[in-house]
Amino acid sequence: MPEPFPLSQRAQVMPASPIRRLAPLATVARQAGKTIYALNIGQPDIPTPPQILERLRSYAAANVPYGPSQGLPEFIEALRRYYAGAGLALEAHEIFVTTAGSEAVLFTLGALCDPGDQVLVFEPFYTNYNGFAAMMGVELVPVTTRAEDGYHLPLRGAIEAKIGRRTRAVLICSPNNPTGTVYGDAEMEMLGSICRERGLYLVADEVYREFVYDGRTQRSALTLSGLDQQVILCDSVSKRYSLCGVRVGNIVSRNRAFLDAVLRFGQARLCPPTLGQVACTALTEVPASYIQGVVAEYQRRRDVVFDALASAPGVLVRRPEGAFYICARLPVDDANAFAEFLLRDFDLGGETVAVAPADGFYATPGLGRDEVRIAYVLEEPKLRRAMEVFLAALAVYPGRVANAVRR
Amino acid sequence: MPEPFPLSQRAQVMPASPIRRLAPLATVARQAGKTIYALNIGQPDIPTPPQILERLRSYAAANVPYGPSQGLPEFIEALRRYYAGAGLALEAHEIFVTTAGSEAVLFTLGALCDPGDQVLVFEPFYTNYNGFAAMMGVELVPVTTRAEDGYHLPLRGAIEAKIGRRTRAVLICSPNNPTGTVYGDAEMEMLGSICRERGLYLVADEVYREFVYDGRTQRSALTLSGLDQQVILCDSVSKRYSLCGVRVGNIVSRNRAFLDAVLRFGQARLCPPTLGQVACTALTEVPASYIQGVVAEYQRRRDVVFDALASAPGVLVRRPEGAFYICARLPVDDANAFAEFLLRDFDLGGETVAVAPADGFYATPGLGRDEVRIAYVLEEPKLRRAMEVFLAALAVYPGRVANAVRR
Repeated sequence: MPEPFPLSQRAQVMPASPIRRLAPLATVARQAGKTIYALNIGQPDIPTPPQILERLRSYAAANVPYGPSQGLPEFIEALRRYYAGAGLALEAHEIFVTTAGSEAVLFTLGALCDPGDQVLVFEPFYTNYNGFAAMMGVELVPVTTRAEDGYHLPLRGAIEAKIGRRTRAVLICSPNNPTGTVYGDAEMEMLGSICRERGLYLVADEVYREFVYDGRTQRSALTLSGLDQQVILCDSVSKRYSLCGVRVGNIVSRNRAFLDAVLRFGQARLCPPTLGQVACTALTEVPASYIQGVVAEYQRRRDVVFDALASAPGVLVRRPEGAFYICARLPVDDANAFAEFLLRDFDLGGETVAVAPADGFYATPGLGRDEVRIAYVLEEPKLRRAMEVFLAALAVYPGRVANAVRR
Repeated sequence: MPEPFPLSQRAQVMPASPIRRLAPLATVARQAGKTIYALNIGQPDIPTPPQILERLRSYAAANVPYGPSQGLPEFIEALRRYYAGAGLALEAHEIFVTTAGSEAVLFTLGALCDPGDQVLVFEPFYTNYNGFAAMMGVELVPVTTRAEDGYHLPLRGAIEAKIGRRTRAVLICSPNNPTGTVYGDAEMEMLGSICRERGLYLVADEVYREFVYDGRTQRSALTLSGLDQQVILCDSVSKRYSLCGVRVGNIVSRNRAFLDAVLRFGQARLCPPTLGQVACTALTEVPASYIQGVVAEYQRRRDVVFDALASAPGVLVRRPEGAFYICARLPVDDANAFAEFLLRDFDLGGETVAVAPADGFYATPGLGRDEVRIAYVLEEPKLRRAMEVFLAALAVYPGRVANAVRR
C-alpha cells in the first residue's frame, strides 16, 4: 500500500496563530493553580448590552433555520441604522452579513485576489490576515510602521515603492489592532489617492470604529471621495458589543460586481449564524450611552497600561489612540521566550500574565522579536495588578537586556 | 484615473447556488400573494429538541466570548458521547468543531488540496461542494451515477478511470444529498479499497447519518479498516436537530497532521459560533426517541412524495433510501425553466412549489437538465398538497415532453 498523499502546501504554510499558540502553556499553568491575567486575546470582558442578550433569551421559534445568505433582513436594517448613526448613509443592499469579521476579510481577499496576487498591509498587522491570505494563496506585502512614529503611516513614496504588478489592494485597520493607532485625515486621504491612481482596492477593517480616545474621531474609508467602487469595509459586532462568540460581522461595499461575487461565496456556506443575528436585531435599542461608557472605560484602562509601561525602565511605548491594544517594545532578547517565561517559569503570589508576542504581527522576518501586544480587556483593578506582575517578571527575566532597541 | 482592477478569476468562476438562485423569483411570488411550498432547500421544519433550545434560552453569561478554535470542550464531549451512541468510539482530540458542515468541507479540501489538485465526486452531488472547491482552486472530477441505478456507485473500473496524477481524495455523501441513496457495505468497502491502494483520502459527508429508511443502517467511513490516516468525516448538527441556522458542525479524523493543519485554519477564524455550541451541549440529554421519531416522520414523507411522483406519467424516480431528498427526472425540456414557471407563471388556488433544478448538482455539462431535487421538509398534509400543485404544474407546463429521457 502506498503512503497517503502528503497534505497540501497550503496546509503546510498555514501559520499557527501567535495569539493562540501559547494556549497549551496557559492551560498547564492554570492546572498548576496559577491565576492568569489573559491579556493575549482581544476578548472583551465588558457586559453585552442587556437588550441583545434578552432578545437571545426570548428566542421563540421551534427550531433554528437557515437565513438568507446575505443576512437576515431585520439585522441588515439594524446595521443600516447603526451606520446612519455613525454618519455613514448606506442602503440595505450595500451590506452583506458575514460569519464575523474573519469571513468578511476572507471573502474580500478571495473576491479581489487570485493565488499569487499581492495585498499591501502595514505591519505590525492583525496576525490572522496571514491565515486568510494563506487560505486564499494571497501574498501579503508588508509596509513597516515604527513604534517611534506611533505606528503611523510612512511617507507616500515608501508605500508606493511596494506596489507591484500583482498588487490588487491595500488592507488597513484603523483604529488598529495591534497598535491602537488611528489614522488621521491626511493619512486616509493619502491612501485614497494612491488607490485611486493605481486602481487598487482599499480594504478597511473598522471593527474598532468607536474605540478612539482623547476626543479623536475615526475617519472611515467609506467617506473617501471617488472610491465608491474600490472601498471595501470589513466590520463586526464582536468588539463593539462584547459578542466575539456570536460570529457575526459584515462587509459594506458600493461595488455591485464585488457584492455579487461575495453573495456567491456566501451561498456556498449557506448563511451566517442565525442566533447571533437575531440577538443583534436588538442593537437599534441599545442607547448611545452604552458605547460611550465602554469607550470611556477602555480609555481609563489604556491609561493604566500605558502609564505602567511608560514608567518602566527600558520599555519603548506610545500612548495608543484607539482600539484596546498596546504594542510595547521590551528590553528582552526574545518576546516569545519572555511570554513563555511568564506562563511557565514565573508567578507573583501565584499570579501571572499572558501576552501575545508581536513577531507574528510582522511579515518581515526579524521584526517584532522584542515586542508584545497587550490587550487591555480586564477591569482596572485587575489590570493594575496584571501590570505589576508583568513588570515584576520583566525585572527578573533572565533574557533581559538594558533597553528596548530603537530603530 | 485607471479603472479598478477586475475581480479575481476565483470570483468569476464562483458558481451561484442553484438552490438559492431562484430566491428572488420566490420573493416576487410571495409579494404577489402566492403561497409557496418551499421544497428547494433542505430546511427541516421539525422542532428542535426542547432541551437544546432551553439551554439556549437560559444562557446566563454577561457576554458572548470566543471559545477555543477547536470548539468548546463541553460540546466536544457531548459529540464524543453522541458518536459512541452511534457505534463510533472516538477520543476528544479527534473531533474538531467547525462553523457548520460547510466549513468542515472547506477546511478539509484546503488541507488536502492545492490549487489544481483534483477530488473525485459522484454526481449528482451536493452543489455547494462546487463553491468550496472554487474558493480553494480545487477541481471536482465527476463520476456519474444514474437514476436508473438508484444513484448507486458504478463499477470500480469506472471510478478508477477518473483517478489521475492530481487526484488527492474521493468525496462522498451517504445518505446522499441530493439523491437519498445510502451506500451499502460493498460500495463502502470498494471505496476504501481504492483509497488504500491509491493513497487517496476518503472524505465522507455523513450529516444525514440517522436518516435511513426501511430498516437500513448507514455504514460510516470511519469503520473502514486500514484507513485511519485517510478517512475524514464531515458532520453537522444542522439536519439532525433542525439547527441549520446555528452553524455548528465538525470534522472527525485520526490523522494528527491533518488535525493540526485544520487547527491552524481554525485559528485564523478564531472559533466556531459559541451560542450554537452552548445550546448543543444539551444534546446528551436528547432521548433516542427524538431521532427515531424524526426518521419515522421523514420516511412517511418520503412515501408521500415518492408515491405521488411515481404515479405521474412520464416521471422517472426511485424510492430514496435515506436523507430527505428525492431526485426526479421529469418530462420537461428544461428543469430550470420549469422551476421558474412554477414560481412565476403558475399557481393552483394561489399556491405553488419551489424546487431545486438539478443541473447544478452535476459537474458534467448537459446532465441534470431534466431533473429536479425535492426536499421533503414539510409535514404530510402540506406535502400532499404541494405534490398536487407540482404535478398540476407539470401537466400544463408548455415545455412538457412525453416522457423523461432514459439513458
